[in-house]
Amino acid sequence: MKAIGVREGAERAELLEIPKPEPDSGEALIRTLRVGVDGTDHEVISGAHGGAPDGEDYLILGHEAVGVVEDPNDTDLAVGDVVVPTVRRPPNGSNRYFDNEEPDMAPEGQYYERGIVGAHGFMAEYFTSPESKLVSLPPELAELGFLVEPISITEKAVEHAMASRSAFEWSPESALVLGNGSLGLLTLAMFEQRFDRTYCLGRRERPDPTIDIIESLDSTYINSNDTPVPEIPEQYEAPDLIYEATGYAKHPFESIEALAPNGVLAALGVPGDWTFEINGGKLHRELVLHNKAIVGSVNSNVSQFEAAVDSLSSLSDSFISDLVTGIYELDEFEGAFVDDDTTIKNAVQFSTYEKR
Amino acid sequence: MKAIGVREGAERAELLEIPKPEPDSGEALIRTLRVGVDGTDHEVISGAHGGAPDGEDYLILGHEAVGVVEDPNDTDLAVGDVVVPTVRRPPNGSNRYFDNEEPDMAPEGQYYERGIVGAHGFMAEYFTSPESKLVSLPPELAELGFLVEPISITEKAVEHAMASRSAFEWSPESALVLGNGSLGLLTLAMFEQRFDRTYCLGRRERPDPTIDIIESLDSTYINSNDTPVPEIPEQYEAPDLIYEATGYAKHPFESIEALAPNGVLAALGVPGDWTFEINGGKLHRELVLHNKAIVGSVNSNVSQFEAAVDSLSSLSDSFISDLVTGIYELDEFEGAFVDDDTTIKNAVQFSTYEKR
Repeated sequence: MKAIGVREGAERAELLEIPKPEPDSGEALIRTLRVGVDGTDHEVISGAHGGAPDGEDYLILGHEAVGVVEDPNDTDLAVGDVVVPTVRRPPNGSNRYFDNEEPDMAPEGQYYERGIVGAHGFMAEYFTSPESKLVSLPPELAELGFLVEPISITEKAVEHAMASRSAFEWSPESALVLGNGSLGLLTLAMFEQRFDRTYCLGRRERPDPTIDIIESLDSTYINSNDTPVPEIPEQYEAPDLIYEATGYAKHPFESIEALAPNGVLAALGVPGDWTFEINGGKLHRELVLHNKAIVGSVNSNVSQFEAAVDSLSSLSDSFISDLVTGIYELDEFEGAFVDDDTTIKNAVQFSTYEKR
Repeated sequence: MKAIGVREGAERAELLEIPKPEPDSGEALIRTLRVGVDGTDHEVISGAHGGAPDGEDYLILGHEAVGVVEDPNDTDLAVGDVVVPTVRRPPNGSNRYFDNEEPDMAPEGQYYERGIVGAHGFMAEYFTSPESKLVSLPPELAELGFLVEPISITEKAVEHAMASRSAFEWSPESALVLGNGSLGLLTLAMFEQRFDRTYCLGRRERPDPTIDIIESLDSTYINSNDTPVPEIPEQYEAPDLIYEATGYAKHPFESIEALAPNGVLAALGVPGDWTFEINGGKLHRELVLHNKAIVGSVNSNVSQFEAAVDSLSSLSDSFISDLVTGIYELDEFEGAFVDDDTTIKNAVQFSTYEKR
């Protein structure tokens, strides 16, 4: 069967011919519908992040997948069920994080990530997965199911951020998303339903399609060239929640000051090393005297995938159609990996869903 | 009546003669037993923190008090009840933080702090307080009630830190207290009951009475001159919880790396400005990839004072007797404000408790 992978050192995605997988006991065989592309894929392709399974010289890409059960094997799934796979798998048997159904909390070395590190991804005509790591989707979401994984990342981050504020009566009114990539925009659309006022920071100039989306969500675009994070409280307002999806290493530290009293920052970016100066005394004092919190968050678990299915179904068709800028058939998959200012969210289509 | 206060600009505590207060409706008149001295008092005396009530040129000190109801007035208290007052009061009528019984979450400007900023403290022969801001104490704790307020500070910080880890199954085993002052030691004694392994970092050399206390608690003393925070994971272990009570501005940032995966830092110090370099990219990445959290915490509310009463009653007599290095009568109160290497926790005694 055909698959999209990256050979070690090649630094580009290419079409590979590999054997069709066979499900083990407890696993189903899934026919892939669509697989989304995100920044992590670009990092994996460039070699900056992740790596092939032990003993192999290539990695099948893709961690944002939706598919249809082709062969339930000995699982309780049925042929034709629409499913989304979670990403993390245990490296050697299981461990307590997987046993708790919280693989997202496993430290490095205690997980593989399909399509990212140590395990092949879902960019193939078929993949197999344990039933316990497949989340069911209503058939009407089959074509958009590749958005469940990124949305689940936000579900987890927000769940953890809200938990950090659960020891007191917290009534957040405003939220700021740092970053206008596809994850930032998905998050903004979710936040628009949950907060009175939302803001999204980016560094693009008008005209720009992401700014159009931000404004169509009745959110306020903040151009970081005009208003860097530390100036946001004065120019706009001090947000109760800040969601960082830029990977810009100064943002968490700048956010400590920008947050409203009792506010929380959810940090999601994964930057490289960068040494810079901060007024650590001021930030420390600000954290303490205003009861602020910072919560780092990575990956997501089955319950957060399930919450993401609900969130996905609540997003408007017009938002989704603005967000998804390209669905590429397998023979033109390279288009899905182009990353320019007109690209927001692309996916590769391996097959089409036909309701039985 | 006699009181201990600081006149504006005087930078020293002195004995003052002021009128005995009269309780308003809803308030009781309390005869003061003992009032503890802590680092905040020294900051207030030096003028670095806090300030006198509007229109007055002196501030009565003291925010760690225990007393006996002298006149219940129109409250439901009874003569002889042992009580501890909370610290924050609303500046003008009430506000939503006080209405929610969470004045500890009020931002600056929405609270006074008795003995610290904007309102007179408890270092006087008598004080008045609304009944709602008095926490009852069993008579057998009357002499130690001045420890309830500092313990409540830890109750709140730990409550918020635990809340931040409540979105997943967290089983912390080890805790590190940064700082071997009286608050650090009280916290360590509480942690010794809650965690399998505890550590306390200080910069003192042996022989030292705080190191003796740490070891009598079966905890491990870490000398920061030998093992700075970033080296603790390698030399000892990466702690699940770090409690910062040093006010040393580098500690929160160093703690991000030192924490175990999924760990949390409770920050309590209030340093002045200090600009220094950090590898912000590394810290950002570490926060995210290991799901770490930082929670700033200040002050405490009635429910945390109540929890502190329980915690105080669980501490051993030998620990308390090592911790409390001096109880000074009013005519020798200056001794309570001496801050040298033999001082751990001092209090001024205004009157004695006699069980009826």
